[in-house]
Amino acid sequence: MSLSMYQASVPVYLRGLDRVDYFLTKGEEFAAANNIPLAELAEAKLAPDMYSLIRQVQSVSDAAKGGAARLAGLEPPSMPDTETTFPELHARIAKTVAFLKGLDPKAFDTAADRDIVLKTRVRELHFKGANFLLGFSLPNFYFHVTTAYDILRHKGVPLGKMDFLGGQ
Amino acid sequence: MSLSMYQASVPVYLRGLDRVDYFLTKGEEFAAANNIPLAELAEAKLAPDMYSLIRQVQSVSDAAKGGAARLAGLEPPSMPDTETTFPELHARIAKTVAFLKGLDPKAFDTAADRDIVLKTRVRELHFKGANFLLGFSLPNFYFHVTTAYDILRHKGVPLGKMDFLGGQ
Repeated sequence: MSLSMYQASVPVYLRGLDRVDYFLTKGEEFAAANNIPLAELAEAKLAPDMYSLIRQVQSVSDAAKGGAARLAGLEPPSMPDTETTFPELHARIAKTVAFLKGLDPKAFDTAADRDIVLKTRVRELHFKGANFLLGFSLPNFYFHVTTAYDILRHKGVPLGKMDFLGGQ
Repeated sequence: MSLSMYQASVPVYLRGLDRVDYFLTKGEEFAAANNIPLAELAEAKLAPDMYSLIRQVQSVSDAAKGGAARLAGLEPPSMPDTETTFPELHARIAKTVAFLKGLDPKAFDTAADRDIVLKTRVRELHFKGANFLLGFSLPNFYFHVTTAYDILRHKGVPLGKMDFLGGQ
């Protein structure tokens, strides 16, 4: 009994994207109920040199589409980070979800042993697919999902752990 | 090519625990350099009704030992949440790491299909091991690892994404 690379990646990304979409909806409801400009939530961050909520959501999308595409042996689709509003963030999530849902699970059959190279500003990171998923992509994905949640909680949006985990 | 349940759980928990231990060390250095009482960091939280840093670290430990034990078919070891200081949090992490390192990878061979029941205050959650790991334990684990990081960043501790991800 083991896990397929597809099972350990695409449904996990989809669940997180669904949760972030829900966090944003709760943020919109909170802003409307409390006469807070949505831009104040969109630009909120936890430290001056951390990403804003907008960049966190864009990074959730990047981690999901980049992780899934690389594991499937594809180029990640380009999604320029042009979003500035909540409706645009919902649309970015929807576009990312559509990409993930269009991937063929069979493309992940050889993903665990696939050579994956990430270029950062500083250097290249070399992985096998399994280590890329477990040691880089999922931690990075969850970092941005959680920080989006933490920013909204910090701004007062009523969310709880069960909202984060989703229906069980 | 697929992932073993051991590979997708124990090394992932160990990496996260190692990172949280490092976040705490950076917090101690920051507090010392800036004459901030350590208790101020230990009690810090992102919202009045969120857990403090101490409870986040205890929850990281709980998620790791609880997840690994249940997948291995064992009772999670009890670790009462008595920590109030940074040295005690480091010790809690070390005790959790020692437990995880003592687990037999063979005990995870049948983990994907194992029936797992979690009792919450409200109801019982029923899982198969694979869904427990991917849909509950890992999201919950990363939630607390990331929120510990976010609390310290919010308090000014100089940490970066590469500190979160660890050496690649």
